[in-house]
Amino acid sequence: MAGTDKTRSADLGPAPTVVLVNPQLGENIGMAARAMANFGLFDLVLVDPREGWDRERAESTASGAHETVKKAIIFNTLTDALKDQQYVYATTARPRGMTKDVMTPEQAGHDMRARVKRGEKVALMFGRERWGLTNDEVSLADVVVTAPVNPAYASLNIAQAVLLMGYEWFKHGATTLGQATPELPALEGPGLQMPDTRPATKEELQGFFDHLERELAEAGFFKTEDKRPGMMRNIRNLYARTQMTEQEVRSLRGVVASLSRTHERRKKGEEG
Amino acid sequence: MAGTDKTRSADLGPAPTVVLVNPQLGENIGMAARAMANFGLFDLVLVDPREGWDRERAESTASGAHETVKKAIIFNTLTDALKDQQYVYATTARPRGMTKDVMTPEQAGHDMRARVKRGEKVALMFGRERWGLTNDEVSLADVVVTAPVNPAYASLNIAQAVLLMGYEWFKHGATTLGQATPELPALEGPGLQMPDTRPATKEELQGFFDHLERELAEAGFFKTEDKRPGMMRNIRNLYARTQMTEQEVRSLRGVVASLSRTHERRKKGEEG
Repeated sequence: MAGTDKTRSADLGPAPTVVLVNPQLGENIGMAARAMANFGLFDLVLVDPREGWDRERAESTASGAHETVKKAIIFNTLTDALKDQQYVYATTARPRGMTKDVMTPEQAGHDMRARVKRGEKVALMFGRERWGLTNDEVSLADVVVTAPVNPAYASLNIAQAVLLMGYEWFKHGATTLGQATPELPALEGPGLQMPDTRPATKEELQGFFDHLERELAEAGFFKTEDKRPGMMRNIRNLYARTQMTEQEVRSLRGVVASLSRTHERRKKGEEG
Repeated sequence: MAGTDKTRSADLGPAPTVVLVNPQLGENIGMAARAMANFGLFDLVLVDPREGWDRERAESTASGAHETVKKAIIFNTLTDALKDQQYVYATTARPRGMTKDVMTPEQAGHDMRARVKRGEKVALMFGRERWGLTNDEVSLADVVVTAPVNPAYASLNIAQAVLLMGYEWFKHGATTLGQATPELPALEGPGLQMPDTRPATKEELQGFFDHLERELAEAGFFKTEDKRPGMMRNIRNLYARTQMTEQEVRSLRGVVASLSRTHERRKKGEEG
């Protein structure tokens, strides 16, 4: 699996419980478990799954996350399933005639983090195929979470809904604290990845510009002297927009040296 | 489909193109098309799909988004597929030994909105199963997008990756007004000031790289042939980090032409 580090513990600390209400297919349960594992969710609860749901299929679909399916707790009623929870998010495509707080997945991500950090037990509730929860089921939740989707094509399956909610949960651990838990080493932040080198100094950069300008002047690039400052400024602006590494500056000087030495090589070839 | 409003037009205005590199299974292509439709993405490009990929399976998996699969454009090479694009995001699990800007999906969402609003053509690039892109493929992109995932379970399949990127694209249009519409003003980005010019297309950029590589080969810059691909990749990565304008690409081609013609001028000088 690309990017998977098997030596890392899968346990990233306390996290929301995922509650699937009345799931119909083992395959969907397995896909949901995989999406959970991607984002550090491991507690799965199934409420009244369809009779004869295919447990083997669920585990094989879950792939590396089959333990999550194996350890899933099954309840007959949603009320029982939620009884130890302290805050419950119901995911639905749209709120239906209810006076209920609505959050975006992103807001829910922040909210979950804050609550779990305070030691609260929180659960994410997902309905049957495509976010379907009855009004009664939704009424057991504290808040409704609705993802912005294309109104002309709003269907999200359970695993996709779990993926988005898991993503927002994990993201806010990764960005707020720089890491999700004390044990998890900081995720590579955004910004420039610079393996085995360092940002070039302005002196090194200027050395490159001087070198380039010298060679360009020699090559007759600046048709007239009065155009020279503007042309060099444009070139400097181009390179200034990206932080160059020390290695890259050396590489570019190599390019300039190489191109402007072409004649020597050719002449040698002619003479030899 | 819960929450789907068939009366709403599926066309939400200009949006990023989704480029799947070397997809293997029709089912994955179909799932990616569904995830696209959820978030208002409709332009699908397939690069070198596996011979004999199951188009029927793709369309049936795509369900309501089968039109997206039907209209998908197929290219033999990634370079061809990207040639009209002006900014390309490569999604990978983690950057691998390259000096390259990295964004989170959220940052990419903001960035895409700002660029599309300015009229730029942008593409999201996805690799084979589980975000796999080669270093050479990544070097054709302007920026790498990496999602924060559980390091112990980092596998995301193509459709999931498309879903997350589509979600972040759509979210940043939708959060402002509560829904995305063609009239929706995109978020203002910081953005590059580009007076009297426009972002270069990938074809123009590739023309510069080809020109440079030709001249460098002639100049003996690549000490050995096996070093050549890596050296050119580093150079492409450098220029890919900053969005070059059409004017700048022309200017750099002038630089290369000028430097590599030095010998002719010198010879003329000697003869004259």
